[in-house]
Amino acid sequence: MSEKLLFTPGPLSTSPAVKQAMQRDLGSRDAEFIAAVREIRCGLVSLAGPGGEDYEAVLIQGSGTFAIESVIGSAVPRGGRLLVAVNGAYGRRMVQIAERLGIATEELLFAEDEPVDARRVDEALHSGVPFTHAAVVHCETTTGILNPIEPIGEAVHRAGAVFLVDAMSSFGGIPLDVAGCRIDFLVSSANKCIQGVPGFGFVLARRTSLQECEGLARSVSLDLFAQWRGLETDGQFRFTPPTHAILAFRRALQELQEEGGVAGRCARYSANHAALMDEMAAMGFVPYLRREHQSPIITTFRYPANPRFHFDEFYAALSRRGFVIYPGKLTRENCFRIGTIGDIFPADIGRLTAAIREVLAEAGVELRP
Amino acid sequence: MSEKLLFTPGPLSTSPAVKQAMQRDLGSRDAEFIAAVREIRCGLVSLAGPGGEDYEAVLIQGSGTFAIESVIGSAVPRGGRLLVAVNGAYGRRMVQIAERLGIATEELLFAEDEPVDARRVDEALHSGVPFTHAAVVHCETTTGILNPIEPIGEAVHRAGAVFLVDAMSSFGGIPLDVAGCRIDFLVSSANKCIQGVPGFGFVLARRTSLQECEGLARSVSLDLFAQWRGLETDGQFRFTPPTHAILAFRRALQELQEEGGVAGRCARYSANHAALMDEMAAMGFVPYLRREHQSPIITTFRYPANPRFHFDEFYAALSRRGFVIYPGKLTRENCFRIGTIGDIFPADIGRLTAAIREVLAEAGVELRP
Repeated sequence: MSEKLLFTPGPLSTSPAVKQAMQRDLGSRDAEFIAAVREIRCGLVSLAGPGGEDYEAVLIQGSGTFAIESVIGSAVPRGGRLLVAVNGAYGRRMVQIAERLGIATEELLFAEDEPVDARRVDEALHSGVPFTHAAVVHCETTTGILNPIEPIGEAVHRAGAVFLVDAMSSFGGIPLDVAGCRIDFLVSSANKCIQGVPGFGFVLARRTSLQECEGLARSVSLDLFAQWRGLETDGQFRFTPPTHAILAFRRALQELQEEGGVAGRCARYSANHAALMDEMAAMGFVPYLRREHQSPIITTFRYPANPRFHFDEFYAALSRRGFVIYPGKLTRENCFRIGTIGDIFPADIGRLTAAIREVLAEAGVELRP
Repeated sequence: MSEKLLFTPGPLSTSPAVKQAMQRDLGSRDAEFIAAVREIRCGLVSLAGPGGEDYEAVLIQGSGTFAIESVIGSAVPRGGRLLVAVNGAYGRRMVQIAERLGIATEELLFAEDEPVDARRVDEALHSGVPFTHAAVVHCETTTGILNPIEPIGEAVHRAGAVFLVDAMSSFGGIPLDVAGCRIDFLVSSANKCIQGVPGFGFVLARRTSLQECEGLARSVSLDLFAQWRGLETDGQFRFTPPTHAILAFRRALQELQEEGGVAGRCARYSANHAALMDEMAAMGFVPYLRREHQSPIITTFRYPANPRFHFDEFYAALSRRGFVIYPGKLTRENCFRIGTIGDIFPADIGRLTAAIREVLAEAGVELRP
């Protein structure tokens, strides 16, 4: 069965060796598995950048959202107040999670095509009742926009608040100085830029901030502190880990190193993205974001202003040719998305855009470059 | 690399074809993946037995404990009261989860070597403030004991309460008439008797009981009703699903059918268990449970009364020979456990017990048969 290539924000196309690593059943309490978990936790901390020795890596079963909820539900104490800067669906999701947990939460809203403005975060942190915690998304997968984590972190730090960053779709693919950006809790997941398969998320937590979470969690399953304590005590997960996804991730981390670490991977993603932008512009597609706000992770394109363009048909025709793209998620605009992460290369972008040309021609959709 | 055989309660040894099914990357919003999820949900409902048409299957990312927490946190309303019958660690875990969620919970405690007594459940349900919900574990993996779900379900039904059953380590391996036992919510996970890989749990929920959960969940990630609604609306998970584990599970369900369904699988597990009991008795090992309470899933054996027996060495020596057994989890007794589920057969039990003989002989541990 020939594989389709995934131009999605994850689950994404993984390397054959990553999938091959799942061809074994390991016991979750067996020494080899425990060693794999240890290797992964060390590998993640080494990606944090300078000052990484102050951080702990904690793996959490489930999707990335589960890991986000474990951080919010374990870090914000009763009586805490959370500010969430929002310019897309994943920022809004953090608000939804916090509100469901009964946490006093304020949403600081930005347009979906504008980055979060650190000055407005700073103002919000100094107006009215103080916030104990502040959260932002690094790369909003909704659009592909990059938010400026460093000045936001400085503002949060000056206000004496704890800083939570959803780096789901960027960590491992875009260099980020976790300590330098004053991050207390960073969340990502296995099936994003590290190019593993889905099954768990992970948290890079400043050790001193993590230690303050003891006894705070609203949930047993999503108790970040207890999960850390369990991993530290005997190296085991408290509850059944996704052993195969963990083995795949160990291999994925090795491949990240072989590619030259985060810098090397970012270079490939940037090359993928540049090839995509050139080819799509040549066809007349208009990106949703201004170039200076755009990440190399995923790119949003407006639907062509042509009545013959129907996204569902476009998607299906590309899928039949072996290329899976991604629908849009904007509140108001009709857009679709193309991811440039995973085990894909500029030549794959060339094959994808050639297929897009074919599909448009067959549908009689002419664009004006 | 040669595979070790896992004599554990899961993650367990899976078939080569189940692992092979993970050699593909599918998009989580792609039609083929959505069809796989639909096939799995139908397959699970078909295992519920007669009256299955009144049930819905909902998949939840994470370990089985996450699915348990999603049921408790989504089904018991504010002001509800939960009775949990406990004769092992997994019953206690349900109490811990409910208490963490702020649910008024009462623990009805039994000895770890005695099944839950339906008459005592009945009495508890009719003493004092009424309970809205009652929960019990079907097969307590702590010991391998089987609890009598049918009379307990009758008692819960007479009391007008909602019945939650943790059938984590039994569902698919021991016949269970879900509707006949008056079960409202049954929980199990992918890496148990259906012989998939870990990554998600699932809930079989009586539709009318599930419909009453709307808006009750304490968590966004573990909102059972919202998860169901999402799967029903567009066939998609709300949050990234473990795509590879799902494909493995689809294959595992096909293999369950090929083996003759739950009855066929139970016959093999029973043959595994009978072979284990015979061989272990011949060596002089003493099982912890009386035979009439013992499931064919996992068996607890007491440490031999021989000062030369050290469990860690015993475990390691068996592991070096390619056999992974499981430590004990009893509060008071020194025991170990041997699972008889997964892609293992009576001949494998023979190889395991031959290795046990060797290891004991090498350590100079003589037993008295």
